Amino acid sequence: MSKKVAIIMGSDSDLPVVKGAITVLKNIGIPIEVHVISAHRTPLIASEFAIKAKEDNFGVIIAAAGKSAHLAGVLAAYTTIPVIGIPCKSSALEGLDALLSTFQMPKGVPVATVAIDGAENAGILAAQILGVSDNLISDKLKKMKIDMEDDVRKKDEKLQNEIWWKL
Amino acid sequence: MSKKVAIIMGSDSDLPVVKGAITVLKNIGIPIEVHVISAHRTPLIASEFAIKAKEDNFGVIIAAAGKSAHLAGVLAAYTTIPVIGIPCKSSALEGLDALLSTFQMPKGVPVATVAIDGAENAGILAAQILGVSDNLISDKLKKMKIDMEDDVRKKDEKLQNEIWWKL
Amino acid sequence: MSKKVAIIMGSDSDLPVVKGAITVLKNIGIPIEVHVISAHRTPLIASEFAIKAKEDNFGVIIAAAGKSAHLAGVLAAYTTIPVIGIPCKSSALEGLDALLSTFQMPKGVPVATVAIDGAENAGILAAQILGVSDNLISDKLKKMKIDMEDDVRKKDEKLQNEIWWKL
Amino acid sequence: MSKKVAIIMGSDSDLPVVKGAITVLKNIGIPIEVHVISAHRTPLIASEFAIKAKEDNFGVIIAAAGKSAHLAGVLAAYTTIPVIGIPCKSSALEGLDALLSTFQMPKGVPVATVAIDGAENAGILAAQILGVSDNLISDKLKKMKIDMEDDVRKKDEKLQNEIWWKL
Amino acid sequence: MSKKVAIIMGSDSDLPVVKGAITVLKNIGIPIEVHVISAHRTPLIASEFAIKAKEDNFGVIIAAAGKSAHLAGVLAAYTTIPVIGIPCKSSALEGLDALLSTFQMPKGVPVATVAIDGAENAGILAAQILGVSDNLISDKLKKMKIDMEDDVRKKDEKLQNEIWWKL
Amino acid sequence: MSKKVAIIMGSDSDLPVVKGAITVLKNIGIPIEVHVISAHRTPLIASEFAIKAKEDNFGVIIAAAGKSAHLAGVLAAYTTIPVIGIPCKSSALEGLDALLSTFQMPKGVPVATVAIDGAENAGILAAQILGVSDNLISDKLKKMKIDMEDDVRKKDEKLQNEIWWKL
Amino acid sequence: MSKKVAIIMGSDSDLPVVKGAITVLKNIGIPIEVHVISAHRTPLIASEFAIKAKEDNFGVIIAAAGKSAHLAGVLAAYTTIPVIGIPCKSSALEGLDALLSTFQMPKGVPVATVAIDGAENAGILAAQILGVSDNLISDKLKKMKIDMEDDVRKKDEKLQNEIWWKL
Amino acid sequence: MSKKVAIIMGSDSDLPVVKGAITVLKNIGIPIEVHVISAHRTPLIASEFAIKAKEDNFGVIIAAAGKSAHLAGVLAAYTTIPVIGIPCKSSALEGLDALLSTFQMPKGVPVATVAIDGAENAGILAAQILGVSDNLISDKLKKMKIDMEDDVRKKDEKLQNEIWWKL
Repeated sequence: MSKKVAIIMGSDSDLPVVKGAITVLKNIGIPIEVHVISAHRTPLIASEFAIKAKEDNFGVIIAAAGKSAHLAGVLAAYTTIPVIGIPCKSSALEGLDALLSTFQMPKGVPVATVAIDGAENAGILAAQILGVSDNLISDKLKKMKIDMEDDVRKKDEKLQNEIWWKL
Repeated sequence: MSKKVAIIMGSDSDLPVVKGAITVLKNIGIPIEVHVISAHRTPLIASEFAIKAKEDNFGVIIAAAGKSAHLAGVLAAYTTIPVIGIPCKSSALEGLDALLSTFQMPKGVPVATVAIDGAENAGILAAQILGVSDNLISDKLKKMKIDMEDDVRKKDEKLQNEIWWKL
Repeated sequence: MSKKVAIIMGSDSDLPVVKGAITVLKNIGIPIEVHVISAHRTPLIASEFAIKAKEDNFGVIIAAAGKSAHLAGVLAAYTTIPVIGIPCKSSALEGLDALLSTFQMPKGVPVATVAIDGAENAGILAAQILGVSDNLISDKLKKMKIDMEDDVRKKDEKLQNEIWWKL
Repeated sequence: MSKKVAIIMGSDSDLPVVKGAITVLKNIGIPIEVHVISAHRTPLIASEFAIKAKEDNFGVIIAAAGKSAHLAGVLAAYTTIPVIGIPCKSSALEGLDALLSTFQMPKGVPVATVAIDGAENAGILAAQILGVSDNLISDKLKKMKIDMEDDVRKKDEKLQNEIWWKL
Repeated sequence: MSKKVAIIMGSDSDLPVVKGAITVLKNIGIPIEVHVISAHRTPLIASEFAIKAKEDNFGVIIAAAGKSAHLAGVLAAYTTIPVIGIPCKSSALEGLDALLSTFQMPKGVPVATVAIDGAENAGILAAQILGVSDNLISDKLKKMKIDMEDDVRKKDEKLQNEIWWKL
Repeated sequence: MSKKVAIIMGSDSDLPVVKGAITVLKNIGIPIEVHVISAHRTPLIASEFAIKAKEDNFGVIIAAAGKSAHLAGVLAAYTTIPVIGIPCKSSALEGLDALLSTFQMPKGVPVATVAIDGAENAGILAAQILGVSDNLISDKLKKMKIDMEDDVRKKDEKLQNEIWWKL
Repeated sequence: MSKKVAIIMGSDSDLPVVKGAITVLKNIGIPIEVHVISAHRTPLIASEFAIKAKEDNFGVIIAAAGKSAHLAGVLAAYTTIPVIGIPCKSSALEGLDALLSTFQMPKGVPVATVAIDGAENAGILAAQILGVSDNLISDKLKKMKIDMEDDVRKKDEKLQNEIWWKL
Repeated sequence: MSKKVAIIMGSDSDLPVVKGAITVLKNIGIPIEVHVISAHRTPLIASEFAIKAKEDNFGVIIAAAGKSAHLAGVLAAYTTIPVIGIPCKSSALEGLDALLSTFQMPKGVPVATVAIDGAENAGILAAQILGVSDNLISDKLKKMKIDMEDDVRKKDEKLQNEIWWKL
């Protein structure tokens, strides 16, 4: 069976954001664990989680946090498995603070940053990472891509059948 | 042998940036290919490269581009293997343009964005991705992490042996 | 008859924005085609559309997209007819991401960028471009300009007839 | 013969920027006029120029200005021919001021904005606009696009023949 | 009698903003004229107004506009009486576009910029300017300042009489 | 004789910036006083200066400061004569910090903000303010405006006599 | 008994923000005084307050203000006790103006800046400062930290007991 | 004797910045320790340092870091003594990244943020904090404030004795 993906949110208020990643990964059939762990309020739990992540059979960690979002970076400091950061739009600065706190990591400790509140893409990226060595997953991703393409194509076809903009 | 990592730069002027990724991946022993491919000037080559990347045995693509940096997103549109984007600081806006053009991808097509000009981290992230299923690589990453830690520790020791700030 | 204007939106959710361009162009009597084509979800359709745009008798392409808005740039990569980009305000960053992804194109591949959500101006600009060699269109634009001026003048006259701010 | 392109700069200090547009248009063989006209220091000359631009046989106006860059907008207010704005990076704010002053035009008066200091692209865009009804110009643009592609392809070939990154 | 203050708004939608200036100036007893004049839609009216402003007995012009707000700068280009600019928050960029379009004027043509939507302060500043040579006005401004101080002092006294935060 | 203009800089390192205002005002013949007064390091001197400014025969105060630039606002708090703020570009944030600290004043206490490092415009604005009631000054400003226009016109004439861009 | 903490807000409209600090400090049992004092509308009261703060037995001053927020800096200019600044999100610029006006103080006069609207953290920081020499306070802070950790831990436990994301 | 101040930098390249704090604190006579500890490269050392800081007799921690600067926040997560953050200008984004990563901390874990590269102010703030309960320190701070005032006053006197700007 595939390695697991950990989905960590810095606050339970980030749960509505994070659901996009949960849905994607469950649809593909990748086992997940979801946790509320704060880099600032439960720092020891965060470090312990990251230190043991590899031996606990996690292949990827997704971390979602807002404001001065240190969660992804703190987890990445303690592990060598890929860490994906979701900057959350949960403050006066509309996620720009979380973005700059997440993506601009110093040399040696990367965080793979996705769009602000981009949990669905975090889920897909995690699947792509596991799919590098797992054809079942990469085949599902390919299928999702084709479905996505069909979806846009159908929307265009529907628009072509509408008359309002042609007259 | 490990899958390959493709390192694509949008312009040959990005080569000095990209070298950080080349060095990291060569040090770990991961096979690479390096290309100059422009999303805007050679779009067909870009799409062909991405379409065939998986069957050409690439596990990860790293894309470096500046200004309205579409390269990573354009490659990601055509493949399901992970695409890492390096926003390059090559314009009046100091890389903010490349950052926003790279990380804020729409649902369905993620780009794993690293720091501005953060090629070394892009290389490490690519190795982490391949290391999910390759213990040789992940062991080397663990060793690099320990070396990095030692390096900081030695700098602190050196500072403790200096006298100027103690008097 | 005049060349056609293509109005491409990256997502059908951009339709309310795009309507401003549709209305302007229909009022002037310029033939249009409206499509949903995504640079990231249907990249092949996008490139095919742009490659054939000139022989399909399009004179101008208008492309509207949000977030890391690559649509206008991707179309411009494949054609030499003018491409107008509308950065859409559809994200946490209020369109700044779409703006920087659209206007800051590298040398050789321009995109004519208008205001955020500025579809009406995109339509007028498209008409101005076709009007360079078509006096019917440029005469209508001149009339629109005079109407616009009259409209402001009437608003000022109305204000002068109000008494509240004079006492 | 083709309509002319006017290249207006707000200050003679913008001449080094503007040269990119001059070179492109001369290479294509499009007749140009180059002027120093300030929206703020010679406003009457600016308005007179724009009012007569169409009858003076101009097809496109390119306007380059920095800081609170009103030049393109002021010219566009007085004409219905397309106005291309080049925001110049000539201030503490690195061209962001000129960008926001140029691209975010109110309804009814578009400015086609290109990249900061993007004079070469302004020239190409002007040629694309004239090329809509002039096959000589559009053929030259097509040739330029192919040359540009060849140039990138050769740079990639050169890189493939280098050995340093392969060992 | 005092010179007049002109209050010009670029669009009648800016009227709610502009009312703050009208109220202040009427309270002080300074004669005003209020107009809707657009730098882009009625440029000739704008220039004529500014050219005649001094002989029409205006002492100060207040100009309110949003987006690429050229109104204050365009008026200032044609007159030597002080022009106060109010950047309006009427766009996706929350007034940052209007601010940068208004305050960052090139050498020789100043605009006195106040806060975003800061019409009340524009009115006070206009009164301060006329008050330099008019003691009636400056005495009223001094009284307003004392009232303002009293108002804050009373709010603090009220707070000191509340008990909720003391227990 | 005309009222005086006070030119206050927050630090003597701002002197090179401030010289633009000194030169303009001396050329027009307006009496000035120049001071180094810090809102944060000599706050009592700042408040005393502003409190007495009107009776000391000052008509306008110009205040130049960088970073969290409170100088103009602090002076404006203690006087009803117009205060012009020059945000200085003297920090990592390139003057954006000084701009936002200067222009965005709360209701009741305006600061007339000019461009970043825009001391020359601050001088002209001060002269315009005094010129409202002093025809000698306003005549000189009118002459300066004509000279400025001539200067641009001559630069354009010179450019028309050059041959390099015509061939 | 502990020294007092002063909580100063620039406008009574900031009271809802400031309550977070009041609650924290009252819970810990630190005596407070709450005032409405404006740096711009009651500048003399502000300076007098700060001058006497130390002898009035205040250990820390918390200052909350929005827009061009000078309050914290103005108070810090007159005292050597620590001043904590809360930038308030009360304007078009979402608190960025208040942030840059508060944190970027010139050499010699620091302001300890916390998050936008971060009054609760301002209260905790004030308590930490007093706790440096007061074990009762620092023990309470330690207990608050443990409670905070427990709170996150319980939220995670609750999440682990939910079934929806596991199936 | 006074409690110690810890000065932690994330990289030894931050030493030139940090020296401002070292000098201030040594001048006042406050004992210090200076360390290179990285939140990301030596996370365990960072957490251990913070956990023991109070019992190791530290009264304040100063943390200087650039880019996605997590150091101050990570230390603050493990201690209840005040943590002062210095955002360093060491990246493409000129310290804005470090600022947003440092000041915008979530509820419960404050960081007292000073200006970008503002190490001298960090030192003064640390002294102010210790000075709350230590009159020797607060007396020295008062003396520094007077010296600072004298310094500005002398610069103004020198300027008044210069003749160039008076003629």
